[in-house]
Amino acid sequence: MKSIGIGLAGFGTVGGGVYKNLESNRALLAQRLGATFEIRRIAVRDLAKSRPVEAPVDLFTTDLDALISDPSIQVIIELMGGVEIPLAFVRKAIEAGKIVVTGNKALLAEHGAELFALAREKRVPIFYEAAVAGGIPIIKTVREAFIGNRFQSIHAILNGTSNYILTRMSEAGLDFAPALAEAKALGYAEADPTLDINGWDAAHKAIILASLAYGFWVESSQIHVSGIDKLTGDDIRFTRQLGYTIKLLATIKADAADEIEVRVCPTLIPKSHVLASVNGVFNAVWLRGDVVGEALFYGRGAGQDPTSSSVIADLAETVTALESPSRCYGFTSHDLYGKLKPIEDATSQFYLRLLVDDTPGVLAQIAGILGTAGIGISSVIQPEGHDTGQLPLVLMIHDATFGQMREAASQIAALPCVKAEPTLLPVETFA
Amino acid sequence: MKSIGIGLAGFGTVGGGVYKNLESNRALLAQRLGATFEIRRIAVRDLAKSRPVEAPVDLFTTDLDALISDPSIQVIIELMGGVEIPLAFVRKAIEAGKIVVTGNKALLAEHGAELFALAREKRVPIFYEAAVAGGIPIIKTVREAFIGNRFQSIHAILNGTSNYILTRMSEAGLDFAPALAEAKALGYAEADPTLDINGWDAAHKAIILASLAYGFWVESSQIHVSGIDKLTGDDIRFTRQLGYTIKLLATIKADAADEIEVRVCPTLIPKSHVLASVNGVFNAVWLRGDVVGEALFYGRGAGQDPTSSSVIADLAETVTALESPSRCYGFTSHDLYGKLKPIEDATSQFYLRLLVDDTPGVLAQIAGILGTAGIGISSVIQPEGHDTGQLPLVLMIHDATFGQMREAASQIAALPCVKAEPTLLPVETFA
Repeated sequence: MKSIGIGLAGFGTVGGGVYKNLESNRALLAQRLGATFEIRRIAVRDLAKSRPVEAPVDLFTTDLDALISDPSIQVIIELMGGVEIPLAFVRKAIEAGKIVVTGNKALLAEHGAELFALAREKRVPIFYEAAVAGGIPIIKTVREAFIGNRFQSIHAILNGTSNYILTRMSEAGLDFAPALAEAKALGYAEADPTLDINGWDAAHKAIILASLAYGFWVESSQIHVSGIDKLTGDDIRFTRQLGYTIKLLATIKADAADEIEVRVCPTLIPKSHVLASVNGVFNAVWLRGDVVGEALFYGRGAGQDPTSSSVIADLAETVTALESPSRCYGFTSHDLYGKLKPIEDATSQFYLRLLVDDTPGVLAQIAGILGTAGIGISSVIQPEGHDTGQLPLVLMIHDATFGQMREAASQIAALPCVKAEPTLLPVETFA
Repeated sequence: MKSIGIGLAGFGTVGGGVYKNLESNRALLAQRLGATFEIRRIAVRDLAKSRPVEAPVDLFTTDLDALISDPSIQVIIELMGGVEIPLAFVRKAIEAGKIVVTGNKALLAEHGAELFALAREKRVPIFYEAAVAGGIPIIKTVREAFIGNRFQSIHAILNGTSNYILTRMSEAGLDFAPALAEAKALGYAEADPTLDINGWDAAHKAIILASLAYGFWVESSQIHVSGIDKLTGDDIRFTRQLGYTIKLLATIKADAADEIEVRVCPTLIPKSHVLASVNGVFNAVWLRGDVVGEALFYGRGAGQDPTSSSVIADLAETVTALESPSRCYGFTSHDLYGKLKPIEDATSQFYLRLLVDDTPGVLAQIAGILGTAGIGISSVIQPEGHDTGQLPLVLMIHDATFGQMREAASQIAALPCVKAEPTLLPVETFA
């Protein structure tokens, strides 16, 4: 039986999980695959740190280069976290002809173009199923299972922490801060949850999915990203009244001119849509392909075991990849698309929530600005106010561009009768 | 660019779809894959038949052997339907060293053991993503993405026709016959819907999934299969009252002794479970793996385009398979499982619906039989009767074996106060 030598960089939650699960299902994997995996070196920053998963002490090293120079190691698993150190390390690994398996979404989102070009030049594949949506095999699905499809759209819930917070705000009527505190207490949010909350963890994953689907590497500086930290319990209640649920949604779609829109932001979706039922820490990806039609993939988007399931699937791919030059080095560019749509030009329906003076004539002023901009209002609700003298005002807006809406919202914000920064969220109807 | 020669056997709905979609996304597929597919021969039974998809007339032949003897054909796509003719044809194709792509679930369910043994001997892979759940890439998922997992359970809705009928019975309150008539009128049921209605279409797919997950070929004669044709509008209503939905559910699971239970039958599932929301012609597969946890895959389970998406994904695999001996000839047996659990020994909760005399003492007689058999009743409901003198009686049963329940139900059926054949359905709690 073939034995494949592994160098594991990083022994945190996921790295430990890979070690543990390779051990626990070793016999099964060997029989299914006709090969075994031997972890020959484990690189960590601190040898003295105590770890929940045990591994033989002589495997550990603090020297990343020791993994690359070891001729018995054919595959490098990079699960370190961070960007700059992994970037240098993965470059070296590829230069040395080692297959790379990584779960590092920030690394790929920011340096994918460079790394995949290098991988192609050196004919060394990079596998990264664990980088997007944890245990859900969405990379394999987009790259292989739906290879015959043009992707019309991908809508996805890609961050379990923020989805947990939104679920609790919705189910228990919590405000953002107590919902975040609860997520931390339960271990669903890290000590520093910045990237979960501000949308960038999901955005890194969306960049990878969009790049794979449309065949050009999406620039992170070119996409629209906003987080969930400005949402209030009011937003949750008002949107529910209107028949919607708010999700931190990645929206990726091609328009008729083959321009690609990529954005990650809190988005209203109809309560009846299947993505509205994706609750708690679960992730889900809803795709539309021109051949396959609609499909949904749902599962655990993070955590030691689900993520290591994806790393192990990538390891299984290395058996074939080592045997023969692979048809795919992880990402194939093609020239059938190639252009991002500026967010200002993207069209959507919108939810606009204002805090206004409780005086006559306010709606007329706001409607006047929207009317002048050629923006149609589909409905207005004025929920009960919290204080005397000021009231929330919610407007649902027909199709408009983000550019039009932002301009109109800033004019509205400047009205003396408008008392706080407007909340502007797109509404996705999946039409 | 590599060009791969294809022989297509069958040019019905799916065969035509494969031809059409290979043409329409030809450039995209070539760029993603670095290879093109050329359909060199199309075998049909009747050259004169008019077909909705057009292909050059000189490709067509009625001679299946012409596909096998053509040295420019490396891959055979078998989409003929039926079992005996495809069996002989696929055998010949493998003997001749041609890779086989098939969507024929009946062929694999009944002759998989033989065909995969032959494939392994001849080192020729068989691909069959299109055989199970149409466009949903569940074969790739079970075989590759979740290769590091022990499968604890797979629950699946695998027949769109019966799911459409059950959805209409539930939503519109239709009885079975009018719901079937509606499905036929809409093209969701074939002229002869026998295999859809009696559960065997779903059972063929369940056999393939179970075999793949547990590494031994499941014998079709050894599994429990029943269809939806005996369900009444009453069953739908009573189960809803109790908080359940009825689905034609494939249940595949391993017990603590590694015995595998495989059954396909109308099954009560809690209304709150995600599979209860899978409506109309959609299919879905709910898996539990020991590493990945729970995951759901949802999409179109039949139809020209979704099914051809899966055939095209298999074609893409042949590029690598032709380059190098594949690690997998379509199915890998292993010895970690190997034994089916007889249905008589499988444990479940149950729904038992009776039609009884509206006289005192009836429940005592029925409860007496169950009590003597050591079977616990968790609840009893006696809905309004339809005629004077006879009443439906529904019992919900705690865990019992199918063997115990069948024996008890037959004793109950023999009581003079019981007026019709009892309806006995398992209740799946996903615990």
